[in-house]
Amino acid sequence: MKDARQSLKNQTDATQPAGSRPGGRAARIQAVVLEAVESLKKEKPSAEITVPMIAARANVTPSTIYRRWGGVAPLLADVAVRQFQADALPPDSGDWRQDLSTWLEQFVDEMGSGPGRELLREALALGNTERAGQCTECILSTLDSIIARGVEQGAAPPDSQRLLDQVVAPVIYRILFTPKSPDIPYARGLLDECLAQAPSQSARKTA
Amino acid sequence: MKDARQSLKNQTDATQPAGSRPGGRAARIQAVVLEAVESLKKEKPSAEITVPMIAARANVTPSTIYRRWGGVAPLLADVAVRQFQADALPPDSGDWRQDLSTWLEQFVDEMGSGPGRELLREALALGNTERAGQCTECILSTLDSIIARGVEQGAAPPDSQRLLDQVVAPVIYRILFTPKSPDIPYARGLLDECLAQAPSQSARKTA
Repeated sequence: MKDARQSLKNQTDATQPAGSRPGGRAARIQAVVLEAVESLKKEKPSAEITVPMIAARANVTPSTIYRRWGGVAPLLADVAVRQFQADALPPDSGDWRQDLSTWLEQFVDEMGSGPGRELLREALALGNTERAGQCTECILSTLDSIIARGVEQGAAPPDSQRLLDQVVAPVIYRILFTPKSPDIPYARGLLDECLAQAPSQSARKTA
Repeated sequence: MKDARQSLKNQTDATQPAGSRPGGRAARIQAVVLEAVESLKKEKPSAEITVPMIAARANVTPSTIYRRWGGVAPLLADVAVRQFQADALPPDSGDWRQDLSTWLEQFVDEMGSGPGRELLREALALGNTERAGQCTECILSTLDSIIARGVEQGAAPPDSQRLLDQVVAPVIYRILFTPKSPDIPYARGLLDECLAQAPSQSARKTA
């Protein structure tokens, strides 16, 4: 997949067929196409979005989209990743626990909503875990930033993999696999428990 | 959804159009169609399975399938649920911890495999969480049976919701959202930690 993308990138330096924009580059086309999908998603359910619709909105030919993405599903997955990438790191309040809690509340609200669930399903729709893995990388990167604040504040926060297992995973599992989205008190309970364990963790290991 | 199914069930008592089997009942059609999908899945990727193919294999008309399921995706989701339902409760070894560990190893092996991942994605493919929720019910029911053995053996096992959050959720999250499937030592580590916490849990709450 990465190789295929790389070769597409290289192609943009080659002579373009007549009709394509002279200034068009892989990154630029990718941006306009993904923005077209994002704007269409605000107007209609993802299931109704077609390649010709996206092409018209982005002002590219449908074949450009088919060549690069192959269809709508990989595009929806790319849009999902972009929205994870845009996930805001909360401002530094001076208290890393507060920042973590702020991030978690926003995460639960957004992911547990109808569009959030849909985003998760779209990230998962492809036959490989590449896009879904990128979503996890975004989450880990935000957690690592908050953890680094904690370390600077002289605390010993749990590592991001532990937060992923004990807090993020149950939240996402319940969003995807149970009829009722998890609420904030539930998520806060997971976080409190994870933070309460952190200091005694090494003690338990030697016990 | 349930109402729609109920009404389909009721329809089978009404006069059937010519050509349908006289002895055909909703449950029977459902069984042959799901078996047809399961047997097709052994031969080709799910993405290549079509309604006419299933109809031919099940010896029903395509319109029977369209009427009841609407298309291939809900059928694949039903098959996924069936496979969760068939998930075997390990034999009672006399040690509930051993039984739990046996179940978990099998779960990680099966769900982390290519077909397992696909099954999870198919259970999630629909716009609602009905099928995915049924998969969770199957998992909870197996866990509850093993927990009941523990209680009979005089132990105080964690409850199934806790096992779901601390063991099942991180395993499934990593299968779906990371490039590398979780392995058995990782899953066993989650289980050990969950079991180690259980007795001290109430102590921590009052602390």
